[in-house]
Amino acid sequence: MSVAPVRFQARESIEQVEEGDDLAPKFDDRGLITVVTTDFRTGELLMQGFMNAEALQLTISSGEAHYYSRSRQVLWHKGATSGLVQTVRELLVDDDQDCIWLRVDVAGGASCHVGYRSCFYRKVPVGSDFAAKQAEGHIGLEWTETEKVFDPDEVYGDAPNPTIL
Amino acid sequence: MSVAPVRFQARESIEQVEEGDDLAPKFDDRGLITVVTTDFRTGELLMQGFMNAEALQLTISSGEAHYYSRSRQVLWHKGATSGLVQTVRELLVDDDQDCIWLRVDVAGGASCHVGYRSCFYRKVPVGSDFAAKQAEGHIGLEWTETEKVFDPDEVYGDAPNPTIL
Repeated sequence: MSVAPVRFQARESIEQVEEGDDLAPKFDDRGLITVVTTDFRTGELLMQGFMNAEALQLTISSGEAHYYSRSRQVLWHKGATSGLVQTVRELLVDDDQDCIWLRVDVAGGASCHVGYRSCFYRKVPVGSDFAAKQAEGHIGLEWTETEKVFDPDEVYGDAPNPTIL
Repeated sequence: MSVAPVRFQARESIEQVEEGDDLAPKFDDRGLITVVTTDFRTGELLMQGFMNAEALQLTISSGEAHYYSRSRQVLWHKGATSGLVQTVRELLVDDDQDCIWLRVDVAGGASCHVGYRSCFYRKVPVGSDFAAKQAEGHIGLEWTETEKVFDPDEVYGDAPNPTIL
């Protein structure tokens, strides 16, 4: 059985968007919606990315995470290069439907192009910790992951780094 | 002791941004950085918002979440109206430093202006669940929270709803 394409509803009222059961996502002026991806098992935040309408439709119909790469300006089936596919266990939408939450299982256990499990591997000292660091003269970031899961040079080779300064 | 303001470093190289201990956040052309806020205890995604430089500095120095409200175009100390202050237990930054992850405790247990605990109270069927729903003719959202934590009319009164169609 072939699956018909995923249809989104037009956004007609605040009540419909916030309290209704229509899927009526808001794409911004670039045609993108923000995506937050967490590990289904641990709850850890793995990455934050973007989808265009096609990426959202493909994610819903296939059950595998698709994003839109802003740096490469292409539809991006996560894991197509690295093998680190994200299987979507749950897909949620927020109150005003301008953000998607993916809860995923990750093949290979890593989601970050730098080689860490999560893209969020550094912590900023906050509040009294910040004040103490400030008094020492440097508020440097602290690592929360010490070991990389994979070597990015081996996995991505000469592909350009997606980070933009 | 008064706390000196939080200083950000200039973004000079990919190695510095990805592998260094400098805090060198990337604000977009609107002067904003994406923020993902989860419950420290449960890992649940509570909300996704934005900060400008001032909101990030105030969050780091005070230990309470500050955002920038795009709909109201003002600095926004979360909980100033509702009392639902977010105490930051951890603040992390991602590989290319264009996204902030706040892990918070929430006074009152709610973060969503609609009255739910989380802004993400509805689920979209995915993969085979999507196909089954599609075959039934309607892929309607499913509620993951059934009870509101507070009544938004009581808390916000006549304040304009932040959702933009």
